[in-house]
Parts: sequence; structure tokens; C-alpha cells
Amino acid sequence: MTTEMNTLGLRARAAAKALAQASTDQKNAALRAMAQHIRAEATTILTANAKDLAAAASKDLKSSFVDRLTLNPSRIEAMATGLEDIAGLKDPVGRVMEKWARPNGMEISRIAVPVGVIGIIYESRPNVTADAGGLCLKSGNAAILRGGSDGIETSKAIITCLQAGLDDAGLSPDAIQMVATSDRAAVGEMLQGLNGTIDLIVPRGGKNLVARVQAEARVPVFSHLEGLCHVYVDKDADLDMAKAIVLNAKMRRTGVCGSAETILIDQAIANTALEPIIRTLIDAGCEIRGDAATQSADKAVKPAAEEDWSTEYLDAIVSMRVVNGVEEAMTHIAKYGSQHTDSIITANAATAEKFLREVDSAIVLHNASTQFADGGEFGFGAEIGIATGKLHARGPVGVEQLTTFKYQIRGTGQIRP
Amino acid sequence: MTTEMNTLGLRARAAAKALAQASTDQKNAALRAMAQHIRAEATTILTANAKDLAAAASKDLKSSFVDRLTLNPSRIEAMATGLEDIAGLKDPVGRVMEKWARPNGMEISRIAVPVGVIGIIYESRPNVTADAGGLCLKSGNAAILRGGSDGIETSKAIITCLQAGLDDAGLSPDAIQMVATSDRAAVGEMLQGLNGTIDLIVPRGGKNLVARVQAEARVPVFSHLEGLCHVYVDKDADLDMAKAIVLNAKMRRTGVCGSAETILIDQAIANTALEPIIRTLIDAGCEIRGDAATQSADKAVKPAAEEDWSTEYLDAIVSMRVVNGVEEAMTHIAKYGSQHTDSIITANAATAEKFLREVDSAIVLHNASTQFADGGEFGFGAEIGIATGKLHARGPVGVEQLTTFKYQIRGTGQIRP
Repeated sequence: MTTEMNTLGLRARAAAKALAQASTDQKNAALRAMAQHIRAEATTILTANAKDLAAAASKDLKSSFVDRLTLNPSRIEAMATGLEDIAGLKDPVGRVMEKWARPNGMEISRIAVPVGVIGIIYESRPNVTADAGGLCLKSGNAAILRGGSDGIETSKAIITCLQAGLDDAGLSPDAIQMVATSDRAAVGEMLQGLNGTIDLIVPRGGKNLVARVQAEARVPVFSHLEGLCHVYVDKDADLDMAKAIVLNAKMRRTGVCGSAETILIDQAIANTALEPIIRTLIDAGCEIRGDAATQSADKAVKPAAEEDWSTEYLDAIVSMRVVNGVEEAMTHIAKYGSQHTDSIITANAATAEKFLREVDSAIVLHNASTQFADGGEFGFGAEIGIATGKLHARGPVGVEQLTTFKYQIRGTGQIRP
Repeated sequence: MTTEMNTLGLRARAAAKALAQASTDQKNAALRAMAQHIRAEATTILTANAKDLAAAASKDLKSSFVDRLTLNPSRIEAMATGLEDIAGLKDPVGRVMEKWARPNGMEISRIAVPVGVIGIIYESRPNVTADAGGLCLKSGNAAILRGGSDGIETSKAIITCLQAGLDDAGLSPDAIQMVATSDRAAVGEMLQGLNGTIDLIVPRGGKNLVARVQAEARVPVFSHLEGLCHVYVDKDADLDMAKAIVLNAKMRRTGVCGSAETILIDQAIANTALEPIIRTLIDAGCEIRGDAATQSADKAVKPAAEEDWSTEYLDAIVSMRVVNGVEEAMTHIAKYGSQHTDSIITANAATAEKFLREVDSAIVLHNASTQFADGGEFGFGAEIGIATGKLHARGPVGVEQLTTFKYQIRGTGQIRP
């Protein structure tokens, strides 16, 4: 490991120890000061961003990539407001999660504590620098941020503001550090845990980034590789509700992980429901790739290939299939889904409960759109992402999910017989 | 991967899916039937155990190892009773952990669900086969058990009883499978996650086994490498209480992970407390390795070397050191401890709260023995081990800790604006 990365890790560990004991007021003061510094340094940040954009212009980058890299005054204000919103969240640290007494008189409490040091690996999206730094701070964790090299000047300018805010509040600037090198080996070192100084990695970005992190990380990772979300329209569904939810789940925003990629229709209502649902989507500009039954319902439906059932389009395209009731729908979801978010539309309570109980996804919904898969919509406030792993954090990862716990036992001299 | 291991994983996955939906009554019926089969087949199990012991006799094995491998009628009865005790525990699956409504009327519930498939890798202790199998079953998880090769005949005989019990209750025998080969490559395949079929690994055994699992596993692991537990005797401690707790923490059972390995004494009471505490331990047959101050208090104290502070003796030996108050005690614990279990003895509430708050260990105690670090003592019932990792399970791992959760959202047609 390079001396630079080693030092970064040791500093983060020391900062995390102090930060775990910081008061709510102190953390919130830092978050508000960070927001003020971002506002005050808007010009500096835009100048740095212009440097990154100029360098990006000489490369052959996608316009969506350049758009995400681009800052403007309203995006800078959104970063500042985002930090103030995080200040407004309830402090997740120190809450008593459970408390009970033992027959021998000992009192056992389970108390929320920060995880420690969190490594965030992300692409060239400047807002992640502020968001992730703020969420880690609020949850009492030190952050090591490693953004994409194309946004490095912008990230540096933002980090300077975050560290100034920490300093204003009497907290160590080492609580939010960035990896200043664009050397990709630094990511590898983070994924190895940086000599035991990183407790958790959160990747933010596209499938390639997340796949690399999942494959190489030697420390726990909160992530999702893809959101292959399904809406199953049951024979007992209200057709108007089904049309509205399918349309929203697919088309509200097609690029988010909670957007539906496959619609499953119960064959018992194929005759009456298929065509109106297809029309609703096509009228909204959505391409449909369907099985034979779906194709026969509307000639605008293109044939689906086997790989369509496991394709996350993140676009105005959806796959559609007729299934034999809720059992076959659940079999399809288990086979092709990504355990992210799946919804059933039905007026039959028993069918709904079966689906909610048996589908093994982080989020399962009844009569609601998959696009609610979002920490804000859960009432968590800002989130750092959605996790589809099984342990610790599943679904939206907000500040509470960035804490862990310890047991405190208060005795009066108890010894064990 | 071998076909055999691949098949094992696929069967476990299918069994886990069914088991997640099994009723509490069905799981408990299986546990009780398993206990009955173990009792009924005691002779068969003892015969198998005799084979293992005969093979072990030809090797140069430690007597403690052979003792753990050895079964007798009372140990067999203890296995059966253990399974019945697990049947008596509350079912952790399906409980509503949190529930709230959103302003748009959606109801969100966080529901406990099984993790899925758990791999247990352990040494030649036949009782782990029954314990781990029972705990996984109760928590709705399928288990893949891989015990030490020296106990393979005994494990096979026990597994036969467990599977017969599953069958009696109408559950698939694949819910508890064992790796029948003694090929060590099978362990490597389990640590890789067995083609995505294993969700979690729990190692049960000595430091070498746990270290290998931690180093190689590509799936989450619940484990602790060692229990370097401390008792800090503060200047405000009641001396009689301190003597009793130190003695219990070290000497009740020296071979358990919650036994104390280092005693820290506040220098403010070194003159009065050191000698009586040393005497208490020495009278109980404990060897003491101390720093200069401890040595000067009693000539029976041997000098401690630097490595003593990080040695888990698991024996009637303890290291002892004089520290400058609670701060230096906590610095010592942070430097040398294993984040397992640490205790402070003091009558000063503020000092106690500081210690409970700032020591970053799974279990922190005030005026109680470190030997309470045990799932049974927490009221969890049987445990599968103690975890010192930061995420999901920390401290005793009982049936609740072997579950995860999902979000169920109940709507009435909500779409996201």
C-alpha cells in the first residue's frame, strides 16, 4: 500500500473514534456550516467544475455522463440544501434499540453506534461527494470518498468546503477525506479494507462499478447490482389501478433502480386486461417486448428473447409476459429478479399476503408503484443507496442503516454461577 | 466445483425457500422429532463415535480434542434436550420489527425473514451438528454442515436423526445437509459461496479455523477470532466486588471466549487494591504476568512481555497492568482488545457511563463479569457463537440474529408523483 493511502486510513480511524462521541448539536452545526461554505464558495466550485468539464470535452464521453458531472448554481444550492436536510434528520446514534432486565438483576441495552469508517466509491457525480459525506457524518462515521477521476477537481473543491464546516464545528477534518489520486490502484486498496481501517464500502454508480466492488471487496458492501423490478397484475386486480401503477412503475422515471422492467399479467384476465395495459404503455412512448400471448394481444408488441427477462433496460422499454396466476408470477420473479423491489396488483387480500410473504425481495408492495423504492419515500430522509444484500441493510440505506449496535450491561456486582 | 457440492447447494436453496414458509408448529415438531430420533438411535450414534475415536487413536491428537470428539449417553441426551430447548424458543421469523404509515396512506412494515442458506464449518465436536442444525431450522434457514473429518462418522449418524425428524414433520431433509466428503477443497467451495447458494458462513472452532474462514470467505461471516476480554478496576471500585468479579471473569471457566485475559488496575488504588486482587487470583491457581508496578506488589507476579497484552491464554494465566485512570484503560483496550467483551468495576456512575459509551466492543459491562458474554445469559436461548464483526450480528448470535428482514408495503393504488 502507498504511504498516502495508509495515512488516510489511520486518520479516518482516529477521526471515527472522536466522531462516535460527538454530540448531535455538534454534528448538525458542522452540516450547516458545510452548507454555508458550499454556498460561499460556489464560484470556486464552478471554476473547478469547468476544469473537469474542459478535460472531459477532450474525451469521448456520453452526454448523460457529462450532464451528471456538470454543476450550475441551482445544483450547488441543492447540495447545500441537502446537507441542511441531513442536519434536520433524527440522530441515529445512541438510541436504545432494546432494553431488558435479567433475572439476576443485570440490565442489558442494545444501543445504536456508528459503524466506524465507510469507504464510498462513486462515479463522477459531484453531488455524491456532499451527500455521502453528510450522511456518514450524521451517522457518526468517518468517510473516505473516492470519486471518479473525471470529477476530481470538483470533488476537491467540495471537500474543502465540507472540511471547513467540520473545522468550524470543532470536528476533525479527517472525518471526511477524499482519495486525491486518480490512480485506480487506490480503489483496490480501499476494497481490501485499507489495512483494516475501512469497515464498510458503499459503491454509487453503474453496474460495472458495482460489479467490480462486489467481486473484489474484502469488507462488507452495501449495494445493488441492478433493479430488475416486477409488477404482477393478478386476475383480481382493479384494471384502472393496474394501468395507473404499471404506467407509473415503468415510466415515471425510467433510469432509476426502482423502475419496473417486467410486467407479469395473470392469464385469467389476459383477454380483458392485456390490451388496455399495453395501450397505456405504448401511448406513453414505451416499447414492449412480450411473450407470444402478449404479442397476440397487440401487434405493436415486439417479441421478447430469453435475455429480456433478465435485462434492466433503465429506459422506456419493458418486457411483458402472461403467467398462470400468482404462483407462476412468483416463480418468474425468483428466477429472473434481483431481490430489489416487486409489486402485486390485486383486490384479493389472501393473494396479496401470499405475495408479500413469499417473494424474497428487499421491498415487496401491494397495490403501489415500485418507484416508491427510495429512502425519502420510506420517510428515512436522504439515502446513500439501495441494498439487495441479505444482511444488516436491505432496501434503502439511510442514516439509521449506517449505524450498528453494541450491548451495554449494567450490573451491581453480578458474577456468573 | 464438484457436482456433489453443486447439488448440495441447489438442494439447500430449494429447501430454504420452502422452510421460510414453514409454520412455527411444523418447525417445532421437527425439532422434537429430531430429539426423539437421537434418543432412539443413541446406540447407533455411539457405535459411529467409537469408529471415529478408533481412527483418532492412531493419530497424535491432543487429549482435549479427543475429549470434545467423545460422546457418551449423557452427552447424547444433552443434544436431544438442546433441540427441545430450541423448540421452546420464540419463533424469530415473521415478527413485525417496525411498522409505520406514510402521508400518502401506504403502510410500511419491516418483517423478520430467514437469511436463507447458512454454511457451518466446525471442528470435530459432534454436538455442534445438532445445535447448529437446530438453530438454523428454528430461524427458517437451511443449513449446510461441514464438521471436522475426525468426527465424520458421528456427524453422519446424527444427521440421519435430524433428517428423519425433518421428514416426520413434513419438511425436506435437505433443510439440514452435511458435506459428506472429508476433502478440504469442499471448505474452500463453501467459502466461495457454493455458486451463490450460501448466504452466510458461521465458523465454530479454534483460531486457525476462524482465521482461514475470515481470510478466504467471499460471503458474510459471523465469527470472532479471539476474546481478549478486559476487566478494568477503577479507583472508585468496591474492592470486594472487584475481587469477586476479577476472579469469576478469569477463573470460572478459563477456556471460554468471555474469560478475562487482562486485568487493568487504576494506579490511584494500586497501593490498596493490587495486592488483594493478585492474592485472590494466585490463591485460585492463576498465574499472573504483570507490568513493573504489578510485579512490585507481589513477588509471585511474573514479568509480562509485550505480547502478553495481546495473548488470549484460554488458561489459568492472566496479564495485569496498572493504568492511569479510565482513559488509559480505554486506550489499552482499544490497542490490544478484540472488540469482544470488556468490563469496568466502579461505584462512580459517570466513569461507568463513559466506559460503556466509549469502549467499542460488542459487549461492555459495568460491575459484572465478562463471563456473561453468552447467548443464554442474555436470554437468547442457545447461540451459535459470538460475533465481533461490526455488521448485522454483534455479540451473541442466537436465532434472532440468524434472521434478516424485508419491507412489506401495503397500498391502495398509490403511484409516485
